This record gives sequence, C-alpha cells and structure tokens, in this order.
Amino acid sequence: MISHTVLFLPHNKRITVRNGENLIRAAMEAGVHINASCGGEGVCGKCYVIIEQGDVDGGITEKLSREECAAGYRQACLSNVKSDIVVRIPVESDVDASMLNMQSTPRRATRIMEMDFEQLKQNGRFLPPVEKRYIKLPEPSAKDNLPDVTRLVNYLKLNFNEHRLVIDLPVIRKIPGVFRKDNFKITVTLARPVQTGRKTHIVNVEPGDTSDKRYGIAMDIGTTTIYGRLIDLSTGKIMADYGDFNKQIGFGEDVITRLIYAEKPGGLKKLHEVSLETINNILRKIINDAGIDPEQILLVTLAGNTTMTQLMLKVDPKYIRRSPYVPASALYPPIKAVDLGMALGEHVTTLIYPEISSYVGGDIVAGIMASGIYCSEELTLYMDIGTNAEIVIGNREWLACAACSAGPAFEGGGIKFGMRATKGAIEDFSIDPLTLEPMNITIGNVRPKGICGSGLINIVATMFELSIIDNLGKFNRSLHTDSIRQNDGVYEYVLARADVTHIDRDIVITEPDIDNLIRAKGAMFSGCMTLLKEVGLSIHDIDRIVLAGGFGSYVDLEKAMTIGLLPEIDPDKVVFIGNGSLTGATMACLANHIRKDVIDVIKKMTNFELSETASYMNNYMASLFLPHTDMNKFPRLKARIETRKKIRLT
Amino acid sequence: MISHTVLFLPHNKRITVRNGENLIRAAMEAGVHINASCGGEGVCGKCYVIIEQGDVDGGITEKLSREECAAGYRQACLSNVKSDIVVRIPVESDVDASMLNMQSTPRRATRIMEMDFEQLKQNGRFLPPVEKRYIKLPEPSAKDNLPDVTRLVNYLKLNFNEHRLVIDLPVIRKIPGVFRKDNFKITVTLARPVQTGRKTHIVNVEPGDTSDKRYGIAMDIGTTTIYGRLIDLSTGKIMADYGDFNKQIGFGEDVITRLIYAEKPGGLKKLHEVSLETINNILRKIINDAGIDPEQILLVTLAGNTTMTQLMLKVDPKYIRRSPYVPASALYPPIKAVDLGMALGEHVTTLIYPEISSYVGGDIVAGIMASGIYCSEELTLYMDIGTNAEIVIGNREWLACAACSAGPAFEGGGIKFGMRATKGAIEDFSIDPLTLEPMNITIGNVRPKGICGSGLINIVATMFELSIIDNLGKFNRSLHTDSIRQNDGVYEYVLARADVTHIDRDIVITEPDIDNLIRAKGAMFSGCMTLLKEVGLSIHDIDRIVLAGGFGSYVDLEKAMTIGLLPEIDPDKVVFIGNGSLTGATMACLANHIRKDVIDVIKKMTNFELSETASYMNNYMASLFLPHTDMNKFPRLKARIETRKKIRLT
Repeated sequence: MISHTVLFLPHNKRITVRNGENLIRAAMEAGVHINASCGGEGVCGKCYVIIEQGDVDGGITEKLSREECAAGYRQACLSNVKSDIVVRIPVESDVDASMLNMQSTPRRATRIMEMDFEQLKQNGRFLPPVEKRYIKLPEPSAKDNLPDVTRLVNYLKLNFNEHRLVIDLPVIRKIPGVFRKDNFKITVTLARPVQTGRKTHIVNVEPGDTSDKRYGIAMDIGTTTIYGRLIDLSTGKIMADYGDFNKQIGFGEDVITRLIYAEKPGGLKKLHEVSLETINNILRKIINDAGIDPEQILLVTLAGNTTMTQLMLKVDPKYIRRSPYVPASALYPPIKAVDLGMALGEHVTTLIYPEISSYVGGDIVAGIMASGIYCSEELTLYMDIGTNAEIVIGNREWLACAACSAGPAFEGGGIKFGMRATKGAIEDFSIDPLTLEPMNITIGNVRPKGICGSGLINIVATMFELSIIDNLGKFNRSLHTDSIRQNDGVYEYVLARADVTHIDRDIVITEPDIDNLIRAKGAMFSGCMTLLKEVGLSIHDIDRIVLAGGFGSYVDLEKAMTIGLLPEIDPDKVVFIGNGSLTGATMACLANHIRKDVIDVIKKMTNFELSETASYMNNYMASLFLPHTDMNKFPRLKARIETRKKIRLT
Repeated sequence: MISHTVLFLPHNKRITVRNGENLIRAAMEAGVHINASCGGEGVCGKCYVIIEQGDVDGGITEKLSREECAAGYRQACLSNVKSDIVVRIPVESDVDASMLNMQSTPRRATRIMEMDFEQLKQNGRFLPPVEKRYIKLPEPSAKDNLPDVTRLVNYLKLNFNEHRLVIDLPVIRKIPGVFRKDNFKITVTLARPVQTGRKTHIVNVEPGDTSDKRYGIAMDIGTTTIYGRLIDLSTGKIMADYGDFNKQIGFGEDVITRLIYAEKPGGLKKLHEVSLETINNILRKIINDAGIDPEQILLVTLAGNTTMTQLMLKVDPKYIRRSPYVPASALYPPIKAVDLGMALGEHVTTLIYPEISSYVGGDIVAGIMASGIYCSEELTLYMDIGTNAEIVIGNREWLACAACSAGPAFEGGGIKFGMRATKGAIEDFSIDPLTLEPMNITIGNVRPKGICGSGLINIVATMFELSIIDNLGKFNRSLHTDSIRQNDGVYEYVLARADVTHIDRDIVITEPDIDNLIRAKGAMFSGCMTLLKEVGLSIHDIDRIVLAGGFGSYVDLEKAMTIGLLPEIDPDKVVFIGNGSLTGATMACLANHIRKDVIDVIKKMTNFELSETASYMNNYMASLFLPHTDMNKFPRLKARIETRKKIRLT
C-alpha cells in the first residue's frame, strides 16, 4: 500500500496516510482542527487550506479564485493526498499554537487485531471441520459384491484409518447413482468429530474429483446487521464478504422488542422467517460474488447473541427476558442448513456458536475464540459495546463475564438527531476552542443527516475537554456564541446549519442527548468495574483490552476514556477486533480445534448477573458524570484539564 | 386352554385338539381321510361321520334324516369338538386298515418356536432401546439460571451417570415450554446407544410423569404382506397385531417386477408412497386396537428384505437386480419415523434391520436374531421358503447364507388354480387311495377358490406317495377314475367339482402345475445342498432346522420332505418360527443388546452367490424329481414306498 506523509502547519503535526486519503480525515486523525460543518461534501466552503509542498487531487471549486488556486488554496474536504505534502491551515482565530497542540492526541493509534491465518497454518491447526477425499474404489464383481456403503466404509477404514464412520440416509440415497457415474471414482465429504477418535460423518459423495472445491461460510447474526463471509477451505482465502440489515428490524429495533414480538401468535415463526430471508439474500450475494458452485459449499458457521440464535433456530425465547433469564440451551448440535431454511445443499452442516447466558451469547463466545484470550497468559478485558454490552475478563486459567443494558445511545437511539452509522452520519468531530466552529466528518463525506454513536462520543468528549460542557454534561452558560442556544428551554449546540445539511434543518446536540450518552457509558463503565471487583481485580491488573463490535471498531479510544466510557488505560494495551463474532465464525470454519476449545471455554466461564450484584447500582450512580465522580480514576485526563486551565489562566 | 381327545375309528388314531376344533381339521391332523371336496363349507355333503361317544357342536344339516342324527351321524366339516369324543368314519371303500394307517404321519408334530420373553427378562436383557425417566429438576433462580438444556444434562449426569448426552434441535425447541408446564417435573425419553458408554440421545421431553406409558412397534415389511405389532415396552406385552397386503402389489407381484417399476420415472417415489400408505394404515389400526395415545409410541423396529427396505427408505434399488447384485447399504442409521413418512410423533426413532446382500435381507437377519441360531452351539439350517428363498447355515461360531429364486409356485403363482393363502384356498388335502376321492380343507372352511402353496405341496406329496403321480410328476396313466382326466391334452386331477366350488368351475391340479412345483422345490433343495457343500457339511451334520416365513409356517413337514423340498431329517429337529422377521423386529423393540449382536452377525456372515457356484446347477438338475434322483437321500420315504408296494402286492 502506497502511503504519504502529511505535515500540518502551523501545528507542526506529521501523519502518515494511505494514498488517496481525504485531507480533512487526515487532519482529524492528526488532531488538527479545520472548520467544516458540512460533513465533507464541500458545501459549506469553510475548510480552506494551503498546499505548500507536494500535490493533492481535487479541492478546486468555483468558490476559489484563479489566484487563490495558484497560491495553493484548496478545499480540504474535497482534496485527496497523492504525494508527501505540507499543508498550512489558515489560522483565523487567534488561539495560540500551544492550545492547538493540546487539542487531542492522534487518533486510531491502537492496533487492529486480525485473525492470524498464517500462524494457524504453521501450527498445523488449519484443519476445517469438513474435508474432502478423492478416492478410487475397487469396482464390485461377482466375487466382491459388498453393499456400496460397506465398500466405501471398508476403504476409508483401510486407507485413512477412519474407524468410526456414520452415514445418514440422504447420503445413502445418493450413493448407488454417484458411485456408477464415474466408475467408482468419487469424492467423499467427511465431517470431522469434535474430539479425535469419535464419529466421523460421511456427509456427501460426488462423482469424480472435486476435492479442491470446498468452501465454507461464516456468519454473524446481529440484532441490527447480519454479515456473511465465503471462505475457500483449501486456502483459507476469503472469497466474498457481505453485510445487510437484519429484516427483523421491521419488528423492533432491539432484542427486547423482538422478544416481545416473538410472543405474539405467529411471532416466532415470522421473526425466524425474516432473518432467514436476510441470511438467504446474503448467501446468494456472496456465492455470486465469489463465482463458485453453491454445491461446493460444505459448511456454515454461525455466531449470534442468544436471542438472535434462538430466533434463527426457532427456539422459543420467551424466558430470555423474564427473571431469572434462562436461555434454552448453551450448546446446539450440528444442524443441517436446509433444516434451518437456508437455501443451500442438503449436505451442508451448520455449526452454531454456543451461548453462555441469556445476554452473553454466541457472538461473544466467537469473539473470545477470535481474540484468543482463552489461551493467553495475559489478563484481558474483552468488551463488546452496544445497546447490550458484554464484558468478559480472564485468561487461559479462568473466565468471567457479565452483560449490561446500555440503552440505545451508542447506536444513535434516544438522541434527537441520532442515527445508525450509515451514510451521512457525523462520525468525527472537532471544534475550534475560541470560535466554537465545528469540523464535522460524515460517513461517505456527504452532507450530514445526523449523529452516530461514535460521533456522539467524539462530540461530547471534545466539548467536555474544552469546557464547553461541564462534568454533568451541561453547557457552559457563560459562553457567548451563536452555536450554543436555547430551544424550548433546552440547551443545544448547532453542529451544522440547515443550509449545509441533507435534511434542511439545523443538526444539533442537546443536553438530554448528552444525558442519554452519560447514562449509557455509565452502565458500561459500572458493569466493567463491578465485574472487576467481583473477580477481585482492579483495572490496573488488566494487561490488555479487546474492543469488539461494529461500534467498538469506530470508537475513538482517547475520547471514550475522556467521557468515562472506558477506564483510562495505556492505549497500547488496547486492541480493536472489529466484528469479533464474524472473525470467530471464520475461525470455526477453518480450524476444527475451535469446537473442542469452545466447550472448554463454556466450562471455564463464570457468568455474573449484574442485576444480582449489589455494588452494580452504586458503581452506576458514581458513573453518571463526565468522566466519573472520582476524577482520580482518570489521571491523564485530569492532568490535561489542569494544564488547559493553567493555559487559559495565563 | 381346554382340550379334548378325539379317537378316530376304525383307524384307532387318537389326537388331542383344542376345544371347538373343526372335526375335519382334526381328522386331517390325525392323518385320517374323510371324503370332502367342498373345503369344509358343508356343501358337498360327503363327510359323514358317526359320533359314538361324547358330543360335538353343529354338524346336523337337512341332508341328514332324524334317524341318522339320532344315530350320531354328523357332517364332519360342520362339527366342532366340545368334549372327548369317539368318531367312527364310515369306510365306504374297501381299503384295509393297514393301508389307512400308513396314509400319513400326524401333522404339525414339530415345535413352534416363540420368543422367550420370560427368559429375556430373567437374563436382565429386557432393556428396550428407548427408555423414559421421570425427574424433578431443581427450578431456576437468580443464583442458578443455567440454560434449560444444561440443567437437564447436568441432572442426568449427576443422578443417572449419563455422561455422553446428545440432544437434537426439535427437542430443544420443546424444552422451554415443557419444563414450565409442571414446575420442572418432566419425563425425558432417552434412546440408548448401541454400545455401552457411547452417546445417549435425549429424544423427547414431556411435562409430568408419563414414564409408565411407553410403547414400541415392530414391523415386518414383506413383498406381499406387511405386519405391524404394538408392544408395551414396560411389560413386554403385545397389545395389538395386524397384517395387510402391501399396496405395492398393484405394481408387481414379486420383487423383480417392483424393481423394474422402480426404474420408471417416478416409480421409486410411487412405490415408497404406497408402502408407506400400507404402513400408516397398519399403524392406525394397531394404535386404535391397543387404545393408546400415539404420542406414547417411542420406537419402531423394521425388518424387510433388501428390496422392500430400499423402497421404504427411498434408496434407489436399481443395482439389486443387475449383476453383480449390489445393495446400497448393509447398515442403516436410526432414522426418524417422520422422515420416512410415518404418521407418528417427531420423536419416534426407527431402527432398521441390516441387510446382508441383495437377496438376503433384513427379514432374514431378524429371523436369525429371533431364532437365536447366532448364539447357539447347535449347527442350524435356517430356511425362509418363498418366491425368493433364503438359506442360512451356522451357529455361534460362524454363519453362511445364500438365496435362490424358487419362482412363484410356493405362493400359488404359475399354478392354474393357484392363489395366495387366503380364504377359500385349499390348504390341506387327503385322498382316498382306492376311490381317489379328495378331502379338501380350505382356509376359512369355505367353498374352494383355488390352491395355495402349502396345499399344493400336500396334494403333490399325497399323490406321489399313493403312486397317483410318478417321480417325474406325471399321472399314473393306468388309473381309472373320473377324477383324473385329460383336458386339451394336459392331464389333470379334479380336486373339486364346479358345484361345490366358489368359482363355479372345476378346480384341478395339472401336470404343468406339478412341474412348476418340482422346479421350485428343486431350486430350494439344491440351494440347501450347495450351501452345505460349500461350507463342507452334509445334512447329517445339522442339529436343527428352523423354518420361517408365512409359507414355512403352514407347510406340512413330512409332505415337504416327501416331495424333496426339505432334506429328510428327524422331524424333532425341525422348528417353525413363523414370521421370523416380525419376531426379530419384536425382539429389537424389547432388547437393545440385539442391535450390538446384529452387527456381530453381519460381520460373521459369509454370503454365497449360488449363481457363481458351479455345483448349484448340477444339484438343481438332480433335484427335478420327486423327491430326487437319488432316492437314498430320503431313506424314510423310500422305506414307506417300499412297504406300500408290498402291501399293494399282497
């Protein structure tokens, strides 16, 4: 990948970006503020910069005169980096450089954790749960007219040491015809047992040699989104990836409304059907994208939270939302894909990630497997942040988990202009400390439509650190600016004026919005603290934090610590795992040992019900501040704020 | 059971019969001839006897005068024995008593072998493959909110030492609701593994205690007839039995025509469907007769020949009838009854008897299990006589088998007035050696419609022994009687004149009929001799013969030896097992060890293809005589014939 260095002046901040990176995103990443309220679509025309050295693509608009263009003026949000460049930000406010330099630490410095396929291979653990063998059976004769299945079983015993073979009726039905299509030269598909020496299932037979054609599909069944991934089981290569909204959204945004709908007559059946519709659409798409024969798919691995899993399996989830919150099952047996309603061959086996409790599901278990925390010495805190947030602490010796309901704020719910993390959502934000002019970056660089969860955190963290809001989330009433105003008695900050938005209305953030966020992050943080305390640890004992989930991947770590969503910890200790659920499902497709390991994980895991833990509510109350009642828990933030106060006082 | 003694005079033959036995049948059993051509319906009015002591029910008709009645005259075929009696047969021919006494040995002296359920119990082997346990699970609480399935599995582990439990999705789907219907008091149905220590399947859960309600169904899937038996798995008691013609008959009488039909487009599906129709009718009938809740049926065990099994399982049987005669599979896994199309609960498991080869199927294996020859020291010859005849030789050390196609004669096929063994078929026969008047007994004691297989054997044997036919099956041309005549150049014997038949035509047996029988019995006998020779034995080494099959149950042993269908052997060594297939299926319902034993049997068994054995054709050619070219193989018959000749000469 080609990359370039961008030097921002007068801040003197240097950052390395990939070729073609948008300049306003590069500035945000470097912690450099450029006024820009239109989200990056070039409408507001405020984000002028001067390219002093090197070159960018684009950035020239009719708002710039020929002279300005010649002098290197460009609109940052429309410029893409194509060489090493030096960029000067015209400082229109008289804030001094020291202030600018303090504005924030660079973004996304933390590592992205990816599945280490090469290591899997090197360790000899690249052994998918399903394999193919091409074999030439001796043809029957008058002297040797054993039944077809006996012929196959004897051959596999003798040549591959397979001593405990099972074959189901649908495969037996295929055998007489298939054996005779290519003179008893066949490819047999074997499903490995979880434990060595147990039963191997003969799941398919095909005429001729198809042993190099074997594919698996990993799926993450989320409440909001379902992702599918098509994998070549010969090479481990990902052939196609596709995600789509779960059609169940039409019956409720979150698991609780889905659970309620499932209790209506025909509700469970309906929810099952629509999730299968989504799944089948995704299957069609990835099979088509990969350009493979769907008959060559051997396996589907699935991970989902407990409710999604039960709805997909059509297992009544009624008792998930009723105290004492009992799910139907931890483990599920391998199930035929066709029996679940998937549009796949009859031979396809589905492996389903087990659940721990009603609110710690297979998606989290998959994440644990993907992150490897169960086989590491390091004490790890695994967090999946969302409406329902899950926390796991442990290492290869022990594991503990808990779930808490953060409410929908992280997903844009309950926020006046909140929205999901889709096109037009403000995801990144910066503010000029003196003019209070915003710099908005939207997903897709289009005019803003609203604010997504990660944008909300960035906005609130930035405002708090610049003392635009106080530790209760209330706007500083002494600031005099048009951007902060009262509307029907509610204080709000204008992120983008109607003329630059997509919705022809001002997009604002209100005090109730901030309050909702504080409650969400308070639930998350107190869950974390309570679980730590239950297992007799403090945050300082933690060697590593793994952040998972679609939301977790976008969150700005430093900002998350600023608002007290995450405990303050050395950013180097934090890794993002992205969609841990999908990665875990992918691993299960590639490495059969995961199925054995996962049973050990389930056995090792202690589940804590926070509602049953007395200290949880105390922790929660103490967390309803920015960042917390006890500022000493956030020493780095405390130091920054004190420094800033000193600068302001000088 | 009340029984009575009947003394026949002047023959001075005594026989014990059950109360109510038909007098003409008692005579036949005792080897006493009474003229009677109408099959026992009282039409021909020839079968007068005199009751000299004791009493009978019925037998008085308008054909008898008041005086005759007073003198004790009765029509034998309408009389039923109700006390010890002395019966005099008015000897209308002047054949002397010595001749009468020689006529035949008493019938059915051989033992009927039945499943010894009491012994099974005493040996502790009355352990059905499926069991129920009533358990009270601890109710979940905030401190103990394990998933429902985990709760159940843990309980079974702790209290019943069940360590390898498997549970399928349909059961998981039932669990949340069922657990909460009666406060976690449930009855769980467990399917035992074949081998101790292997996986136990949880196949059903029900609220409350239903542990005493558990039933199994054993079925014999025959080419002609399907039998079902409903068994109480708590007590071993048979609750209902029912048999019906296999609806597949509409698509061909025998397996070969079925196999041909199965190859037509849609043929396999159609044959599968109609056999399932028959099966479902039988299920409905026996469930209704037993008056049980069909939900309490846990298990179906099935035995059928290879073709019937593959048609029922919808496994293409194309290669069964093509050299080298390869069936699809020996073993079949447990299959859900609903997956086969049976109208039973989703939890019902079907166990299918394994096949040995294309023409030695699960019905024979079931018979082997039922007869216990596989665990006996005695060297046994097991024969299932029918269109397709199967022969097994062996003991607990080794087993060998072969099949031969006898043709349809034993089932009445290819015989001018041949018919299946149903109402109106002449099944028993005797002849007056001088007048050549017949004594016919039909099934159901109605006017004759035709001749069934066992009747055919009895007729031919009787005629041969009385020299009415010679050893080539040709009528003695020197006999002068109306009963033997030529019709279009073909010799025939009139069994019943049109006026006493049901079909208003004379019922005859022709020389071509006899020829067909000779070829059928020749195939059977030579199969037997060939297999004996292949394993290095002679008939004298055999300790026991087991005769199986619907036909086998009705055949008169001595007559079968007379025509050379069976080798001559001490009748005490012969046992009838009746429907060995159904008995074997019944045992599989009651005793799980059968499933393990049957695998050993399959492993021990050597299958011989007679078509590949050079000596078979020689043996066959030598067997196309009554009883055989080598009369020395039948010393008892030889002695009888010689004695008879002497008497005749005197």
